[in-house]
Amino acid sequence: MSHHSGYETTLGAIAEQFDLELALGDPGARLDGVCALTPGRDAGLAFAESEAQADALAATGATAVILTAALAPRCPVAALVCERPRLAFARAASVFEPAPPAAGVHPSAVVEPGARVDPGASIGPQAVVGADAVLEAGVVVGPSSVIGARARIGTDTRIEANVSVGDGVVIGARVRIEANAAIGGRGFGLVHNGQGWDPIPQLGGVRIDDDVEVGAGTTIDRGAIDDTVIGPGVKLDDQVHIGHNCVIGAHTVVAGCTGIAGSCTIGAHCMIGGGVGIGDHVTVVDGVIITAASQVPKDITAAGVYSSTLRAMPAGKWRKRLALFRQLDRIERRLRRVERPGAFTGDKDE
Amino acid sequence: MSHHSGYETTLGAIAEQFDLELALGDPGARLDGVCALTPGRDAGLAFAESEAQADALAATGATAVILTAALAPRCPVAALVCERPRLAFARAASVFEPAPPAAGVHPSAVVEPGARVDPGASIGPQAVVGADAVLEAGVVVGPSSVIGARARIGTDTRIEANVSVGDGVVIGARVRIEANAAIGGRGFGLVHNGQGWDPIPQLGGVRIDDDVEVGAGTTIDRGAIDDTVIGPGVKLDDQVHIGHNCVIGAHTVVAGCTGIAGSCTIGAHCMIGGGVGIGDHVTVVDGVIITAASQVPKDITAAGVYSSTLRAMPAGKWRKRLALFRQLDRIERRLRRVERPGAFTGDKDE
Amino acid sequence: MSHHSGYETTLGAIAEQFDLELALGDPGARLDGVCALTPGRDAGLAFAESEAQADALAATGATAVILTAALAPRCPVAALVCERPRLAFARAASVFEPAPPAAGVHPSAVVEPGARVDPGASIGPQAVVGADAVLEAGVVVGPSSVIGARARIGTDTRIEANVSVGDGVVIGARVRIEANAAIGGRGFGLVHNGQGWDPIPQLGGVRIDDDVEVGAGTTIDRGAIDDTVIGPGVKLDDQVHIGHNCVIGAHTVVAGCTGIAGSCTIGAHCMIGGGVGIGDHVTVVDGVIITAASQVPKDITAAGVYSSTLRAMPAGKWRKRLALFRQLDRIERRLRRVERPGAFTGDKDE
Repeated sequence: MSHHSGYETTLGAIAEQFDLELALGDPGARLDGVCALTPGRDAGLAFAESEAQADALAATGATAVILTAALAPRCPVAALVCERPRLAFARAASVFEPAPPAAGVHPSAVVEPGARVDPGASIGPQAVVGADAVLEAGVVVGPSSVIGARARIGTDTRIEANVSVGDGVVIGARVRIEANAAIGGRGFGLVHNGQGWDPIPQLGGVRIDDDVEVGAGTTIDRGAIDDTVIGPGVKLDDQVHIGHNCVIGAHTVVAGCTGIAGSCTIGAHCMIGGGVGIGDHVTVVDGVIITAASQVPKDITAAGVYSSTLRAMPAGKWRKRLALFRQLDRIERRLRRVERPGAFTGDKDE
Repeated sequence: MSHHSGYETTLGAIAEQFDLELALGDPGARLDGVCALTPGRDAGLAFAESEAQADALAATGATAVILTAALAPRCPVAALVCERPRLAFARAASVFEPAPPAAGVHPSAVVEPGARVDPGASIGPQAVVGADAVLEAGVVVGPSSVIGARARIGTDTRIEANVSVGDGVVIGARVRIEANAAIGGRGFGLVHNGQGWDPIPQLGGVRIDDDVEVGAGTTIDRGAIDDTVIGPGVKLDDQVHIGHNCVIGAHTVVAGCTGIAGSCTIGAHCMIGGGVGIGDHVTVVDGVIITAASQVPKDITAAGVYSSTLRAMPAGKWRKRLALFRQLDRIERRLRRVERPGAFTGDKDE
Repeated sequence: MSHHSGYETTLGAIAEQFDLELALGDPGARLDGVCALTPGRDAGLAFAESEAQADALAATGATAVILTAALAPRCPVAALVCERPRLAFARAASVFEPAPPAAGVHPSAVVEPGARVDPGASIGPQAVVGADAVLEAGVVVGPSSVIGARARIGTDTRIEANVSVGDGVVIGARVRIEANAAIGGRGFGLVHNGQGWDPIPQLGGVRIDDDVEVGAGTTIDRGAIDDTVIGPGVKLDDQVHIGHNCVIGAHTVVAGCTGIAGSCTIGAHCMIGGGVGIGDHVTVVDGVIITAASQVPKDITAAGVYSSTLRAMPAGKWRKRLALFRQLDRIERRLRRVERPGAFTGDKDE
C-alpha cells in the first residue's frame, strides 16, 4: 500500500517549486503522495534513476516520474527531468509530509518556572519542559517527552514522543529526534575502590549541532568533564549508542544498532554501517567507511573502506571452519614442518 | 523465589479447563501460582517434559506437576498428564497472570478530539491517544504511552508503559507491546546532496498483524513509500530493530538485540537468534534458522540452519589465531609453494 | 568546554572532606567544578595519576590537581596528594553534581491508591506511581517515569526520565536508573503449538540490589517463574539487555549494547565489554573478563580474559582473508596431501 497524504498539489507546481523540467505531461495533473514505480498509482509521484529500472518504468502506474534525461524517452507517464532524481524526489516528497502540530502549549504539558518557550513552538500533551530551558520558534516537543532544566533547543527542531533530553543539553536548529531516544544520560565512568566500583561524576554536557538526526531508542551520554559533541549534519539511525565524550564529525552517518564507546573521535563524512562496535578512545579519520557489524578496537588513520563483516553459511560448514580456525596455530605449524622437513620446531599447542 | 499470584484455583479446575488427565492427586488441592520443579513449593504448579528431569521430579516440592505419561509413575505429587507438558503449562499458567487493568480512561490521560476509544478499552494514567485514533474493545494503553493520530489498534491488544506508537500505525488484535518500544519512527533513508545528506521523507506506515509480540525497547520504523509489515504471530524480543520497509513473515521469532536493516523480506516460520545483523535488501526464505550473533549480508535462498557465530576463548589464544587469520593469504601462498616446489608465484602481500 | 556547576567550594574544604594532603596552594582558593588537565581552567579541579601525564600536568591551567606524591613536585598549581588520584577525584567531583530535585510530589504526577511515598521522596512531573508501590526516603522518580503496582524502591534510589519499572519489581537503595530504561518486561519465553508460538507466562519478578546502576535504554526482563536478579554494586551501561531469569553477580560491570540471553548466571567481579553476546543458559564464573563484541555461546568455567573480538582491516584485504577462511577445510586438506604425498584422502568439499 502506498499512502495518500491528504495534501494535494499539481505536477506543474512540483516542477516549478523544485526546478524540474516537465518533459511530458499535463501541468495541471493532480498529485497527492508518493509511490513506488511499480505498481505505482493514480496521483502518485515516483522516481527512476538507473537503466536497471527501465522495465519498471515502462510498466509504471504512477502519475508522474522524476528521472534522468536518459530515461525520459522511455517514460509512459508524465516525466520530470533532472540530473539527480533521488535527491529531487527526496525534496519533492517533503511536500507530502504531515504538517507539524500547531504552535502552543498543550494544557496537559508542564512548563517549569523560568523556561522560555517561543510562542511559535509546540509542546505536546503530557510533555515536560524543565526550569530555565530555552526553546526557539518552530520547536516541536512530542507527547510525553521531557526536556531537562537549562536545556537549549534551536529553531525548527522536532522531538518525537517519549524522548528524554537531559539537563543542560544543547541542541541546534532543524534537528530531528525520534521516539524514545535518550540524550544526556550519565556516561559510564567507573573507578575501582578496592571492593567494587565508584561512579565518576559525569559533569559535562551534550552538544548536538544543526541538522542532526537521532533515531528511535538511540542513546547519547553526557561527557565526564568536557561535552559529548555531535557535529552538524550527522545522521544517527535507531538504537545507536554514543558514549561519553565522543566527538562525531560533520555529516557522518551511523546505521542502526552501532555502539561507539567513550571518548572516541570520529571524523567528518564517515559512513558507519549497522551493528558496528567501536572501542573506547578510538580515533577514526575523515572519510572512513566501515561495513556492517565490523569491530574497530584500534584507530583508523587513513580514509578508505574497512571491514570485519562475517557472512553466515550453513551451520555444519561454519562449525567445521570455526574448528579449523581454532586450530590455526597447529595448521601453521604443520605447514612449517612440511616447509622445513627434519627441522625441530618444539612448539606446543596453546 | 517463586510468586503467589493472588489468584487461587484448584487442581481439578486446571485439569478440566486445560483438558489434562489428573492421574494422581486431590482435585480440590489448592494452586496459587507456578514454581520450578525444585525446590517447588506448596500450592505451586510445575512441569516436567523429559527423562533428564526425573531426579528433579522425584524431589519436587510442587503441589502438582504437568508431565508426560512416561514420567507420571515417578511423580511423588499430584500429576496432570498430557502429551506436551510445556505447552500445557504455558496455557495453564496464564490463569495466574495479573488481570488487565479495568476498562476506562484514567482522568490524567489525554484523548484528543476525534479519537474513538471503545468503552471496553483501558487508557492508563498520563497516556495520550491522538486525534482520530481508533482503539477497539479490550485494548490496554499503559501509563505514559503515546498513540499517534489516526492509529488503529485491534481488540485485546495490550501496550505497556512509555511506548510510542506513531501516527497512522495499524496494529492488529491480541498484540503485546512491551515498555519503551517505539513503533513508526522515520526510516533511515538518506540521499547525498553534494555537501551532506538529505533525509528522504518516510511516508509509508507500519502494519502489525494479529498475535504479534514486541519486546521492550524494540524499534520498528515506518516505510519510505510502502509499509513496514510485521506478519501474524511474529514474536520480537527486546531491543530488536526492524528497519523501514521490512516485511517479516508469519510466526517468525527474533531474539534480543537483533537488527534487521531496511527493505528486508524475512520468510515465515524463521527463528533468528539474538544479536544477529541482517543487511539491507536481504531476502530470507521461509523456515530459516540463524544462530545468535550471525551476520547475514546476503540472501538466504534455502531453508536450513545458518551461522557465523564465533566462540570466545582465552584471550592469548584468540589473539594468536586472529593474527594467523590476518596472515591467511600468506599461509595459503606458503602452502602453494610447498605444493609446487620451484614454481614462481610472484605474489605480493596485500 | 568544561562546566561550572553553580556550586562553589574551596581547596581547603575539599582537602579536608576527602582526606587529601594539600601539598601546595592556598586553602582558600575557590573551586567551582572539574576540568581536564589541559587546558584546564580557573577554579577547576583536575587529576593526574601517571608519569605519562607529566607534560600535561606541567602545562595545566587548572586551579588544583589531585595527584600522586611522585607527581606532586612537577605540579605548577595547587596539589592535593593521595595514593589513588582517580578514585579521590571521582569522590571529590561529586560535590559539584547537581542537587537532586526537592522532595514532594509534583502536582501533575499520579500516585495511585495504596501507594506509600515517603515524604522525603521526590516524584517528578507527569510521573506515575502504581497502586501499593512503596518508595522510601530520598527516592527520586524522574519526569514521565512509571513505577508499577506493588513495586518497592529503596532509600536514595534515583530514577531518571521516561523509565518504566514493572509491577512488583523490587529495587534496593542507592540505585541509579538512567532515562528510558525498562525494568520488568515480560521475558521472551515461547513454546511451539504446532502452528505458531504460544507465550509462556512470565510470572517471576526482577530484584535489583543496592548500589546498582542501569544505563539509558537498558532492558531487564522479569523471570518466567523465579526472579531475574541483579546483584549488589552491578553497573550496566546503556542499551544492555538482560534476559529473563538471569542472575548477575555482585560488582560485575557490563558495557554498552551487550545482550545476555535468558537464564544466564554471571559471576561476581566480572568485566564484560561492549557489544558482547552471551547465549541462553550460559554460566560464567567469578572474575571473568570478556573483551568487546565477543560471543559466548558456552559456559566459562575459569577466571581469566576471554575474547573473540575481530579487528576491521581494509575491506579488500578482509574479503580475501574471509574467502580463505571459507576455504579452510580445503586448505587443511591440501596441507594433508603435502604432508602425506601419494595418500588417498577421498574428501569432498562440504
